Amino acid sequence: MSVDLMTVDVPSGSSARVATPEPGDPRLARLSLNQRTTARWSLREAIDGTVTAGLSAIGLWREPVGEVGLAVARTWVEDAGLRVSSLCRGGFFTAADPVERAAARDSNRTAIDEAAVLRASTLVLVPGGLPAGDRDLVGARARVVEAVAELVPYALERGVTLGIEPMHPVYAADRGVVSTLAQALDIAERFPAEAVGVVVDSFHLWWEPGVLEQVRRAGDRILSYQIGDWITPLPADTLLARGMMGDGHIDFPALTSAVSAAGYRGDVEVEIFNAEVWDAPPDQVLATMARRYVELVEGHL
Amino acid sequence: MSVDLMTVDVPSGSSARVATPEPGDPRLARLSLNQRTTARWSLREAIDGTVTAGLSAIGLWREPVGEVGLAVARTWVEDAGLRVSSLCRGGFFTAADPVERAAARDSNRTAIDEAAVLRASTLVLVPGGLPAGDRDLVGARARVVEAVAELVPYALERGVTLGIEPMHPVYAADRGVVSTLAQALDIAERFPAEAVGVVVDSFHLWWEPGVLEQVRRAGDRILSYQIGDWITPLPADTLLARGMMGDGHIDFPALTSAVSAAGYRGDVEVEIFNAEVWDAPPDQVLATMARRYVELVEGHL
Repeated sequence: MSVDLMTVDVPSGSSARVATPEPGDPRLARLSLNQRTTARWSLREAIDGTVTAGLSAIGLWREPVGEVGLAVARTWVEDAGLRVSSLCRGGFFTAADPVERAAARDSNRTAIDEAAVLRASTLVLVPGGLPAGDRDLVGARARVVEAVAELVPYALERGVTLGIEPMHPVYAADRGVVSTLAQALDIAERFPAEAVGVVVDSFHLWWEPGVLEQVRRAGDRILSYQIGDWITPLPADTLLARGMMGDGHIDFPALTSAVSAAGYRGDVEVEIFNAEVWDAPPDQVLATMARRYVELVEGHL
Repeated sequence: MSVDLMTVDVPSGSSARVATPEPGDPRLARLSLNQRTTARWSLREAIDGTVTAGLSAIGLWREPVGEVGLAVARTWVEDAGLRVSSLCRGGFFTAADPVERAAARDSNRTAIDEAAVLRASTLVLVPGGLPAGDRDLVGARARVVEAVAELVPYALERGVTLGIEPMHPVYAADRGVVSTLAQALDIAERFPAEAVGVVVDSFHLWWEPGVLEQVRRAGDRILSYQIGDWITPLPADTLLARGMMGDGHIDFPALTSAVSAAGYRGDVEVEIFNAEVWDAPPDQVLATMARRYVELVEGHL
């Protein structure tokens, strides 16, 4: 293989530094596309694009799965020969109001059912933020523990693992009150490892003091390894602030080595919410992420 | 006193919930204006405005002090009868390059000299981010410890305390690699308490798991208590993302009680970088912050 100097990475526009790995390249064996990285693609297009790029895993979201129906989605991914590296997402269970809490529990049970049907490696739990007008962060965090405890028997019965996703503190108020890997592990370790673990997402965790030690501590609690970069200046919409690996500040070799040393053998899912990435042709997004993955991540697994 | 229903808070535009405390009101005894909260005011105007509002302390920045000259600034604050609750800022000492490191050390020594002349309660140290193109966050954090160690003898000689300011992780890449109060204390505790402590800034730390326990741990290491709120949606420019106390998600009574229980008896400095606050008439900013302070903070000190 040689690097085609006419090949450019997206969205940076810089020249590709490595050749695009071809389908069948063993280095692609654990790379997964989270379908929100190519948000403009339908589920059908995302499955086809994943196969065309030579990947064998995809991370799904409940909403696009719901649009085609669970049974159809399962058939599609099975027929395509893809693993489902994660289902996004359950969680959002920080409400203080009993009616809202019951609704969240029901929604999470449905999400567990869906994850079981799709044979997803894990159901990603995004904890949720502070209820409107509520400033009791300690209380909201305590309710996360209660909500997970309520779901554990249901998840165990269906063979689904719950992956608590610690989120960058920039989201603590409105999206995820679990802010560090240490904190996520403090919660997960209360429950059997067959039921509850954590999602290690580079974008959310790269800044955490001692994060490599926490990854080591996590061991077999790591249910998903998601990658995306921290770029500056931070895009104006913090929900769309993630960058392509290599475009930002994260030391992917170091984090990946730690995840691997902890024993993680699952898929590596690229999850990038970014308006510029979404504006780029999805096949170029896949090609760029495959190049960056083999350059910065794969050799350290 | 009665609440004037025609009085509105800035920048929210909502009706004031409490009467504006008048000069001489003992509840104002520990309230300080960080001069960047009224960025459009010159140093002279900020001093006059602080006195007019009935406050007895001000937090200064090196640049506006430098514009009028250190001796003049000292005379002005002394003649106005104001304490200098902090001088912002030293730090920015994460460079790996030896020449840049030496320049940072010299600049910090000058800042210590200035803090001594101004009799500032502390020199605030903003650690700095990753050097350009450098992804070694562990290394940058190690250099913070080395840089502080280099400054300690100089600070001790001049009777200046160095306040390490942990910054919200949203700034870890480009502004402050010390991201939690726990981490700042791990650094500060290596040195004598007479030389090195921490700045507790609500905006930076409110999300930290266990922050109230860390405040207790900090004890007499707390050299400054700065307040500003975390608002959502986060303004597009993260450097101007702070809100007026009460406009966001932070539980000021809880944090303030912890700071007080830890033994802190110093000033409480309002530091808000926010374009809407800067657009508002500065005297209204002071009146609003005084109202919010007596409503949410002062009774818990």
